[in-house]
Amino acid sequence: MNFREQIKSAFLKNNSLLCVGLDVDLSKLSDAQLKEQDPIFAFNRDIINATKDLVCAYKPNMAFYEMAGPSGLNALEKTIKLIHSFGLPVILDAKRGDIGNTSSAYAKTVFDIFNADATTVSPYMGKDSIEPFLRYKNKGIFVLCLTSNPGAQDFEMPNDLYKQVARKVNEWDENNNCGLVVGATQASFIKEIREIAPNLPFLIPGIGAQGGETKATLRAAGKNCIINASRSIIYSSDPKAQAKQLRDEINACY
Amino acid sequence: MNFREQIKSAFLKNNSLLCVGLDVDLSKLSDAQLKEQDPIFAFNRDIINATKDLVCAYKPNMAFYEMAGPSGLNALEKTIKLIHSFGLPVILDAKRGDIGNTSSAYAKTVFDIFNADATTVSPYMGKDSIEPFLRYKNKGIFVLCLTSNPGAQDFEMPNDLYKQVARKVNEWDENNNCGLVVGATQASFIKEIREIAPNLPFLIPGIGAQGGETKATLRAAGKNCIINASRSIIYSSDPKAQAKQLRDEINACY
Repeated sequence: MNFREQIKSAFLKNNSLLCVGLDVDLSKLSDAQLKEQDPIFAFNRDIINATKDLVCAYKPNMAFYEMAGPSGLNALEKTIKLIHSFGLPVILDAKRGDIGNTSSAYAKTVFDIFNADATTVSPYMGKDSIEPFLRYKNKGIFVLCLTSNPGAQDFEMPNDLYKQVARKVNEWDENNNCGLVVGATQASFIKEIREIAPNLPFLIPGIGAQGGETKATLRAAGKNCIINASRSIIYSSDPKAQAKQLRDEINACY
Repeated sequence: MNFREQIKSAFLKNNSLLCVGLDVDLSKLSDAQLKEQDPIFAFNRDIINATKDLVCAYKPNMAFYEMAGPSGLNALEKTIKLIHSFGLPVILDAKRGDIGNTSSAYAKTVFDIFNADATTVSPYMGKDSIEPFLRYKNKGIFVLCLTSNPGAQDFEMPNDLYKQVARKVNEWDENNNCGLVVGATQASFIKEIREIAPNLPFLIPGIGAQGGETKATLRAAGKNCIINASRSIIYSSDPKAQAKQLRDEINACY
């Protein structure tokens, strides 16, 4: 199964477009988790066990595991194995981008060492910086397009750079393995991007703690989407109830 | 000492603008290095011992250490300590870029955990994605501007995006800790970028194995530069002679 088929399968099983972002913050672990041998993994395991019937994917962000040193990367590896044991795909959010042989090293790390099913990359340096990722035909490569942070106005929006990116990535999708990262706070722009790239899956962060007008966003994007929420679920007092509510709210938008 | 002072001090000591890129390729280690307990560190140590009187900095690229797993990151940590023991600065090439709290995690990893003196970041997501790095007043933050790979023509060059980046980074330099990554194969553009950002240090990759017209590039850039060479030195049969020759060729350009 390639990544798109994995997502479709998870969607059909759990009736969900929701992806849970596993951005561990050590200061927010419970006393019980802190007492375990691997507290980061314990935190993720508890979230995954609570939400595995409510999501289409999980999205750990590399930054939080790197910051914890070798034990953090070990926890990431175990987390990915646990997710796979439930038949669900993993988007390892890394936003890498570098020249040829360096980019190959990053792709190898994400796909071969950590065994992620998809990742995020930065488009700045252009096609050859992304090509080593694109060669993994069964994986998913989500290219940053339009993000939901204030800095999107610095470079992404002037001269419609985000549209140039959407057009190029649509061309690069020869192996049906590309996607776009499109922020949910920019609902009015999502329609334009969908017109440029009718068949690319969108990875939409920014639902939940980051704000965002869910309904307008999702109607503009269509159902070929993976909708991420991180802090609003994983730091909630009841992650399962929170994930269920968000999944159902998402489904009600269509 | 902040990063700019560290570079100046190293330049005065070694009369060199040359930075050596430590991009380890496990397939190129010697038999003697492979027999050591930490082959990656052994490779770097041999390069550093041979070139430490000929450079102004070293630039390990995170990708190659991550790819080797926990032992690779351990080798990186030891490599940085060794470089610091000779009073030389380290640019940890990572090209990170993400939203607020994620970017803070990356900055913490690079500057607090690995204790690098400078790093590289991607501008795509705008100022708030770089701000957590900029808060480290004594470090150096080199923002990707115009790179030397073919993909520079996809987004960096259309609509003069690289000039927009140079202008913004010049504004963001309130703590005198910014710099720009400017590829050496684009000598004709370097003059324009220098006019936009007269006081920012340039990190110039692409000397050596990646090609580049050294003299034209350096005259356009001026002396506020760090000129990197990786493969042409570290995989040479005589890294010391190769580094000395390149250092002297660089000095002869001015």
